[in-house]
Amino acid sequence: MEDIATRPIGMFDSGVGGLTVLKALRERMPCEDVVYLGDTARLPYGTKSAQTVSRYAVQCAAELVRRGIKLLVVACNTASAVAIGPLREAYPDIPVIGVVEPGAQAACRATRNKAIAVIATESTIAGGAYQRAIHAMEPEARVLGHPCPLFVPLAEEGWTEGEVTEGVARRYLDPIFRPASGDERPEAPDTLVLGCTHFPLLAPSIRAVVPASTTIVDSAATTARTVFDALERLNLRRPGSGCGMTRYLTTDDVPRFARTGSRFLGTPVTEAQVELVDL
Amino acid sequence: MEDIATRPIGMFDSGVGGLTVLKALRERMPCEDVVYLGDTARLPYGTKSAQTVSRYAVQCAAELVRRGIKLLVVACNTASAVAIGPLREAYPDIPVIGVVEPGAQAACRATRNKAIAVIATESTIAGGAYQRAIHAMEPEARVLGHPCPLFVPLAEEGWTEGEVTEGVARRYLDPIFRPASGDERPEAPDTLVLGCTHFPLLAPSIRAVVPASTTIVDSAATTARTVFDALERLNLRRPGSGCGMTRYLTTDDVPRFARTGSRFLGTPVTEAQVELVDL
Repeated sequence: MEDIATRPIGMFDSGVGGLTVLKALRERMPCEDVVYLGDTARLPYGTKSAQTVSRYAVQCAAELVRRGIKLLVVACNTASAVAIGPLREAYPDIPVIGVVEPGAQAACRATRNKAIAVIATESTIAGGAYQRAIHAMEPEARVLGHPCPLFVPLAEEGWTEGEVTEGVARRYLDPIFRPASGDERPEAPDTLVLGCTHFPLLAPSIRAVVPASTTIVDSAATTARTVFDALERLNLRRPGSGCGMTRYLTTDDVPRFARTGSRFLGTPVTEAQVELVDL
Repeated sequence: MEDIATRPIGMFDSGVGGLTVLKALRERMPCEDVVYLGDTARLPYGTKSAQTVSRYAVQCAAELVRRGIKLLVVACNTASAVAIGPLREAYPDIPVIGVVEPGAQAACRATRNKAIAVIATESTIAGGAYQRAIHAMEPEARVLGHPCPLFVPLAEEGWTEGEVTEGVARRYLDPIFRPASGDERPEAPDTLVLGCTHFPLLAPSIRAVVPASTTIVDSAATTARTVFDALERLNLRRPGSGCGMTRYLTTDDVPRFARTGSRFLGTPVTEAQVELVDL
């Protein structure tokens, strides 16, 4: 009988952003096999309706399930925020882990003044998934959600540091962390959740403009830990040692996926590793 | 017999950017009826392959043709660059006008030193459509194509002026218009084509960073003139006077279309004018 533990982990995102989650996963579980699907033909998910994103997410999952995965990681905040329910309904026998709950959990553990800022795409903030996940664990928490849509193209353009990026970061974050003096405002948050998989690339610029005492929660790292714990609990860790294989699927433009993907993964993605699929 | 001249003009774009073309069209031909389709569920086209964009463009056109249009405007640079051929093949009996040729024509008329810069999305520049269209009219011209992908989300975010936007504009345009002194470089272009329908919104910031003598060609205005000329020539101008009707179709999120659309059109788009369609 086939040992399910030897199967790959499946992951998907609307594009290359989820590769920051894959990178964290690889660091923690180097010997797992992974199939990563980037639905680049239909990105970005962040500006689309919940209904459309759910439909796309189930189509991505179907392609991965067809390839025999043992666990599904939704490496996309927008899809994690709106499609976890529909995905668990469509595939009740496969564990599904999103990026929202691990990030919310880490923020609740980190905060001391119970004020947490969440930055993400427009639809993730509007959907309120982080706000709900944090309140479920910490009902007293004050959660400030703020959309930062320009961070996504800045990360994709590779403008991760420098004057322009810090200028954008300051314009988005100063109202949250450095309100004009004299304002009658509650205490600024002590914890900032990067609620979009693109944002870890901009961490240096974000770090440069928030107060030094702020804890920055990177949901990629916390998600990797959650996946590790789930595999342990379900006895699904891949046996043996050695380096796991990664296979990439994309719905559009293989060379572009390899090029921008390398930036997000931090190591080269070759075109030979990438397969074009039609969902 | 139905008079074809009374039919609406059909226009499509991947989103709301093409509304800058509609705005120019309305100014020149206020009494025409227009059906505008924004394929927001699948935007942006600018990062997708030529094959995918062509398929989407033909699907958009099919929806408009079904509604009985007399002329089709491809109000999207990416689709104009790669899909005009497939569209004319699919609908040989409907005049199809894109935004690339009118913009190229205006640039060739404006330049004195035969050096023209074109800024657009990554795929428009990589596809080389402006370069080809300009060389077809002006074989001696030196064409400098430069992708400016961050301008798109800046326009959508409404950050059309100010320090951040000028910083982005400077980073993109200084290498073209203000090369480091001491460089052995040919003369800077005297003409700049805004080769993306989003860019006219950023014209004040673009104007602020290029030399004052630069002619900026806005392809929205030049396309409206080309449409006017075609309707005259084909005897398809709508008879009578009075205000034409505009109908909007979108493939995702009606409230968002109305909200961001109003910014691009410069006048309010109400949700009642917008219809959700599935292509």
